[in-house]
Amino acid sequence: MNPLAGRDVLAIPELSRSDIDLVLATAASFEQQLQGQRTIPLLDGYILCTLFYEPSTRTRLSFEAAMHRLQGRVISVAEITSSSVAKGESIDDTVRTIEQYADVIAMRHNEAGAAHIAAEAASIPVINGGDGSRNHPTQALLDLYTIQKERGAIDGQVIALVGDLKYGRTTHSLAEALARFRVEILMVSPPELSMPDHVTGALRQAGVAFEQTADIEEAVRRADVMYVTRIQRERFPTPAEYDRFRGVFHIDPPLVERSKPGVTIMHPLPRVDEISHEVDSYAGAAYFRQARNGVYVRMALLALVLGAI
Amino acid sequence: MNPLAGRDVLAIPELSRSDIDLVLATAASFEQQLQGQRTIPLLDGYILCTLFYEPSTRTRLSFEAAMHRLQGRVISVAEITSSSVAKGESIDDTVRTIEQYADVIAMRHNEAGAAHIAAEAASIPVINGGDGSRNHPTQALLDLYTIQKERGAIDGQVIALVGDLKYGRTTHSLAEALARFRVEILMVSPPELSMPDHVTGALRQAGVAFEQTADIEEAVRRADVMYVTRIQRERFPTPAEYDRFRGVFHIDPPLVERSKPGVTIMHPLPRVDEISHEVDSYAGAAYFRQARNGVYVRMALLALVLGAI
Amino acid sequence: MNPLAGRDVLAIPELSRSDIDLVLATAASFEQQLQGQRTIPLLDGYILCTLFYEPSTRTRLSFEAAMHRLQGRVISVAEITSSSVAKGESIDDTVRTIEQYADVIAMRHNEAGAAHIAAEAASIPVINGGDGSRNHPTQALLDLYTIQKERGAIDGQVIALVGDLKYGRTTHSLAEALARFRVEILMVSPPELSMPDHVTGALRQAGVAFEQTADIEEAVRRADVMYVTRIQRERFPTPAEYDRFRGVFHIDPPLVERSKPGVTIMHPLPRVDEISHEVDSYAGAAYFRQARNGVYVRMALLALVLGAI
Repeated sequence: MNPLAGRDVLAIPELSRSDIDLVLATAASFEQQLQGQRTIPLLDGYILCTLFYEPSTRTRLSFEAAMHRLQGRVISVAEITSSSVAKGESIDDTVRTIEQYADVIAMRHNEAGAAHIAAEAASIPVINGGDGSRNHPTQALLDLYTIQKERGAIDGQVIALVGDLKYGRTTHSLAEALARFRVEILMVSPPELSMPDHVTGALRQAGVAFEQTADIEEAVRRADVMYVTRIQRERFPTPAEYDRFRGVFHIDPPLVERSKPGVTIMHPLPRVDEISHEVDSYAGAAYFRQARNGVYVRMALLALVLGAI
Repeated sequence: MNPLAGRDVLAIPELSRSDIDLVLATAASFEQQLQGQRTIPLLDGYILCTLFYEPSTRTRLSFEAAMHRLQGRVISVAEITSSSVAKGESIDDTVRTIEQYADVIAMRHNEAGAAHIAAEAASIPVINGGDGSRNHPTQALLDLYTIQKERGAIDGQVIALVGDLKYGRTTHSLAEALARFRVEILMVSPPELSMPDHVTGALRQAGVAFEQTADIEEAVRRADVMYVTRIQRERFPTPAEYDRFRGVFHIDPPLVERSKPGVTIMHPLPRVDEISHEVDSYAGAAYFRQARNGVYVRMALLALVLGAI
Repeated sequence: MNPLAGRDVLAIPELSRSDIDLVLATAASFEQQLQGQRTIPLLDGYILCTLFYEPSTRTRLSFEAAMHRLQGRVISVAEITSSSVAKGESIDDTVRTIEQYADVIAMRHNEAGAAHIAAEAASIPVINGGDGSRNHPTQALLDLYTIQKERGAIDGQVIALVGDLKYGRTTHSLAEALARFRVEILMVSPPELSMPDHVTGALRQAGVAFEQTADIEEAVRRADVMYVTRIQRERFPTPAEYDRFRGVFHIDPPLVERSKPGVTIMHPLPRVDEISHEVDSYAGAAYFRQARNGVYVRMALLALVLGAI
């Protein structure tokens, strides 16, 4: 049995480096197998419940496609509104009911910590598909997988995290994940939206080299990977300040041209206007491949926690 | 062909004792088979449509899991809102359209009698997943199955129905189902929320022994099974009256200790605070097992009405 | 490989007569095969995404049932509301993400032209399940299939399109489809709701015989097929005018009796009161069979564009 069998996947800090390596290797093996066949029959007869307290079409469809590619079945709560699950019932009770129907739960919730409450109550594995502003471990794992695939390795890369680093939960989880590797991190954000202390503190403790700056030209000069996230207008005191940063952090062909040759551009999606559509045809624009990698990584997680490997 | 093949499952009074026995025996056989395998390939190639005019996550997921465990397929309307099905179309027409796509319909509706209208129109089997305050036959059948499994038999048990017996449709369907067995029923409710005459009348006619009381200590002394349901605040004229009954009808460890040794505690879920979470670890607390039994019973119903047995 | 393999199905004018013949022949073959078996294993391992920007239960369920009958899998967005797909993301980006999860997209959108935008962006086939008031090609194809099946042939038939021909997109797509055959079309509508010029112009160019009238008795005397659609109250300047046409265009047993013997009555559904329920038992009332034909035709389209035939 593999070391993730029967376990929950809730937050990156709870995974060891060898856990992460196992997930990435399994995903790579699945991707290769899917070159020659449409499905891999590892989860035939298993049922995944996607339990989404808030809607996230992208994450839900990715989990469901992953389950289908492993020949598993899916039952789904795409959004909890007025249904009986919502009427004052505790997360504990909901999860203890759903585990009577399914073999694994992929859960999304608007409150930080919800996935841990669910996992505590459940006797089946719970995979966190994002809880509030806290954790989004499957996104971080697919980001790692994408870096490895696009760059050949994670170790040795200079990775710029660009945009709203204060509220962007994907950059928090990704930074925590990168802390397991020998990388250099450039944190590029307006001062108002810089990385929270709990993340930088963890990086310092792990001995990871990082710098914080508001100057995107720093990233342009040095980064092997530009990981771009959305900046929301409402985070700024005045429209003028928003417009200033918005213009500077906009990835367009001239910026790509000034970058290191072969720079990899990533984005967790959806994008609004952080990356110009003209950049899409650039060979290093990896964001849609990144979405596909999410399927392989979630296949790996489902197969591993269900002990099918 | 079994005697339920091609039939609808709309209301407990329409099922004979031998129909009920067949459902329970089939569910037991499925449960046993699922010890050693993940699915039972009886409904491969069949399509279930879960047609829910009002959302009920729990019931819908249970039906869908049941279909998947039989290797069937599912198409679903989780909630009818602004969709074309809703725009003034009659239930008849909706059902006569859906039967062109599916082989069996599991339906939930907010109006009493809707399932009968649907079944009249449909040429494929319709299973009632709850219609208004009237019928909820699959819940009653899974309750019977749970009593049989937890107690060894249904006959001979003293069963207390506790809570809101006036509006709680699950207790009505369960009382009608228990009328087919040799049991003693204690109806424990505030006087304002006592069992409707049409149910007690039917029990009298069937010769079932029952008593009505507001004193839960009566149940504590005598019941083999405590079937607890939710009491809603808005049913009472004053908050004080609500608080009085709410306190008395709250199942907690001291009440369990005063009960008959090995008493079985059931609840249709979701619970709010009728049963203390401290009771969950008590061996006789059967409510989550009860939810799992719903899958076996719905598997039995699907396989039987589709003539796969 | 068949000539539709890898192609999109967006609008009837983009399909040749031989494309249409191939779809109809494939649907007929599937219908015949499904007499003796429950599924046809052509799309085992393929994933369909039903991407519905506006809900349409009927069309969505029909596509999903078609996919299941071919042993394929389904992931679904039944309605886009507050989900991440909606938050300012372009259709292009949404589709380029979803194609990472699925092998084919069936899409519904409230804006004309949306399906073409999606197909332009996607590298996988897109099937238009209705976009705004413009195109509904799968409906037109299933209508053709129904005419052929009910009448033995499409060529040579006199087909009356009855009701709101101005706003009813199904009659536009059907008229465009009929233009590929040797038929005579009677357009029967209130003058306020007559067929738009772009449709009649296309028919003239194709050399199709058609007449426009407000007199339903003309259709009663001459039509082999009555294709009835809904007239909405709000299209008329006064309630009195609405009532006048509503009464005249109501299909009831006396009107059927005055019609040509064996006349075929069709309706895209849902109906409100355009066709009396008393007409349902008439042998030529084909509207529910028409809904079933939608499954065969969508099976054909899915199998063809995925190159499985």
